[in-house]
Amino acid sequence: MKAEIVSIGNELTSGSVLNTNATFIANELHAIGIEIAEIITVGDDTASIIAALRNVKPMVSFVIVTGGLGPTVDDITTHAAAEALRRKLTLNKQALQAMEEHCKRVGRTMSPHTMRQAYVPSGANIIANPIGTACGFSATRSNTIFFFLPGVPREMMRMFEESVIPLIKKEQPEHALVRTAVLKIFGRTESFCDQALSDLIKQEHEITFAFLPHYPEITIKLTIRGTEKKYLEKKLKAVERKAIHLLGDIVFARDEETLEMVVGNLLRQSGATLALAESCTGGLITHRLTNVPGSSDYLERSLIVYSNKAKKELLKVPASILSSFGAVSERAAAYMARAVKSLSKTTIGLAVTGIAGPAGGTPEKPVGTVFISLAHKRQVTTQRHQCYGDREQIKHITSQYALDGLRKLLIAGGRNSSN
Amino acid sequence: MKAEIVSIGNELTSGSVLNTNATFIANELHAIGIEIAEIITVGDDTASIIAALRNVKPMVSFVIVTGGLGPTVDDITTHAAAEALRRKLTLNKQALQAMEEHCKRVGRTMSPHTMRQAYVPSGANIIANPIGTACGFSATRSNTIFFFLPGVPREMMRMFEESVIPLIKKEQPEHALVRTAVLKIFGRTESFCDQALSDLIKQEHEITFAFLPHYPEITIKLTIRGTEKKYLEKKLKAVERKAIHLLGDIVFARDEETLEMVVGNLLRQSGATLALAESCTGGLITHRLTNVPGSSDYLERSLIVYSNKAKKELLKVPASILSSFGAVSERAAAYMARAVKSLSKTTIGLAVTGIAGPAGGTPEKPVGTVFISLAHKRQVTTQRHQCYGDREQIKHITSQYALDGLRKLLIAGGRNSSN
Repeated sequence: MKAEIVSIGNELTSGSVLNTNATFIANELHAIGIEIAEIITVGDDTASIIAALRNVKPMVSFVIVTGGLGPTVDDITTHAAAEALRRKLTLNKQALQAMEEHCKRVGRTMSPHTMRQAYVPSGANIIANPIGTACGFSATRSNTIFFFLPGVPREMMRMFEESVIPLIKKEQPEHALVRTAVLKIFGRTESFCDQALSDLIKQEHEITFAFLPHYPEITIKLTIRGTEKKYLEKKLKAVERKAIHLLGDIVFARDEETLEMVVGNLLRQSGATLALAESCTGGLITHRLTNVPGSSDYLERSLIVYSNKAKKELLKVPASILSSFGAVSERAAAYMARAVKSLSKTTIGLAVTGIAGPAGGTPEKPVGTVFISLAHKRQVTTQRHQCYGDREQIKHITSQYALDGLRKLLIAGGRNSSN
Repeated sequence: MKAEIVSIGNELTSGSVLNTNATFIANELHAIGIEIAEIITVGDDTASIIAALRNVKPMVSFVIVTGGLGPTVDDITTHAAAEALRRKLTLNKQALQAMEEHCKRVGRTMSPHTMRQAYVPSGANIIANPIGTACGFSATRSNTIFFFLPGVPREMMRMFEESVIPLIKKEQPEHALVRTAVLKIFGRTESFCDQALSDLIKQEHEITFAFLPHYPEITIKLTIRGTEKKYLEKKLKAVERKAIHLLGDIVFARDEETLEMVVGNLLRQSGATLALAESCTGGLITHRLTNVPGSSDYLERSLIVYSNKAKKELLKVPASILSSFGAVSERAAAYMARAVKSLSKTTIGLAVTGIAGPAGGTPEKPVGTVFISLAHKRQVTTQRHQCYGDREQIKHITSQYALDGLRKLLIAGGRNSSN
């Protein structure tokens, strides 16, 4: 079955924001075996929206429309939809009630402006918005179902996954099945992964391999299509296992897992606790770790020792290290890791110091030089990395090196203790 | 004048990669006053490409086509272009020479595969590719100029800027100019802003107002088009000023500024220094502050006191406060702000404590309850907020409240000292 995506918004046609909504929808539909015939992006212009909705290609079963459902003057999608589908706009009680409930939940009163959003084309079915005011709706014309969703990505994504995908799956013929597996890689290039898997890719014709760089991570997506659920899942599992074997420990996560989730699980499994001393990453590593629910089980504290004064006062880093080797040095990183571990009485101490730029680089330590130190039991290991990019990229890749180093330490520790 | 963008590639229609090319082109064209009538994305399919090229809307002067010009089997754009424009494919000597020179430059010999790329529709003009093999080309049909460019972003961008933009500018009437201004808002809804500006929007017909929610921020983009540079800029400035006046202090930034940049500038201007104690935000506030180059000028340290033990040891929060009022309380937040300020000897102390969820909520303090405290001079002010969403959203909106509170404190401080 085929689908079309219609993205609406002047912010898209003026190049102000990336059309992440269309990519998300295309990806979700692709995963359940729906082909995207076309993605059309138009501005907040009634005639253009009507033209896009009326010129849907033959054989398209679903049209997903996003944007322009809000309360402001430039939100004109509902009117255009009514005209394109030749329906009248009517007040929808279900929509009105949902909006009233939402306003109550967030402690707001509903303005007449907001109420505008309860008018939808007659005969349309409401699509609930669990986290925002604007409801979505669906309407059928000829053999095509049109889904209208708000453009706010987190609302759209939630509504698409919870309401649209189940409706589309119901329309699909019995056995168009798709199964996917995702491997996440850090520390080697796309070419390296491609070469490591080249024989497997040639052998396994049933599986398509897609390489998607999400810098600094690489995602490899394995897809299999067919009709027999059991066979597909068994085959996919077997090939996934082979791929992991060929790639080795650069595979840090599978499917929806993030690096911080993997690290969190390893910490919990090993009963370890963690304290951090961050300098150039400015709290990013701790921010990522605390995005995982329950991280207070293993994360004790983190000191963001941005100034040298803070390094000295909080971690007792000797002035001699700072003056002889500098705050960005192997010595300083190692001292910080050991100090934060002993100060917090945790199992592991992790410290990071580096030059995030744009200023502060020298010929010996250019911008992007970072030292990452892990203190565990009586050992301290420190690694020097050279990162590239702007300030935010250097912070991000440094946090990735730090968390991946912690992952490898915990895996090795697990292996040692089970020996 | 109007343009259309046609993006070609299965990686786009399957949702594997974001269509950054279309956003780049739209942005560049918008800046020189060209309106984008439509962006069409299709897969590597000859019939779809031909349909997209033949169905160009009336009044469109330029069509920018990207993707599918490479040497592999799925690169079919040139064939589709020839068919859509009803031309024959002929070997273009200029293209062949350019490709030979490129191969020589990178030390490769030209394969017959590569040579395929020297065939273009008859009568087309070659667009040089200074950094890759695949040339682009342009061809005119009726009153529309079609530009065909490779899909590799860095090649496309370079060719677009160096060759396509100058050609388009030549076709433009004297000076079609566009000027834009952006206001960023936090703390009120989109409906509120819409109502606050409704009279201004009605009065100022020359200016278009676009509301773009970037949760939890709202962006309002003002656009003016015309021919006289001075008039446009003066008019835009005047309307922008009126809009800021009507919206008040919920406008926290303009154009490319971020909240953390604004806060950083205010800290620097007032000669203030800052120390933080973060609990539920887990380092996010400090991470945002340190994304700004030069933030070490005013940021002294930050303590992420995730455990109660860390709160007691590092900030000396009395056990009685933690047991009587809880770690998530006005008392605890105020104590933490005062303690981190005096410990670090900074001008300002900022502390945050709350329940990010999903666990830990109670009827009195549900998930999303946060206390934000600012210690400045001898005063401590604490605010309680109720945030909504998942863990990451609660962290994010809390960091926004904290930074915005700091912004307001610094503005008020500036006003007081100048009185």
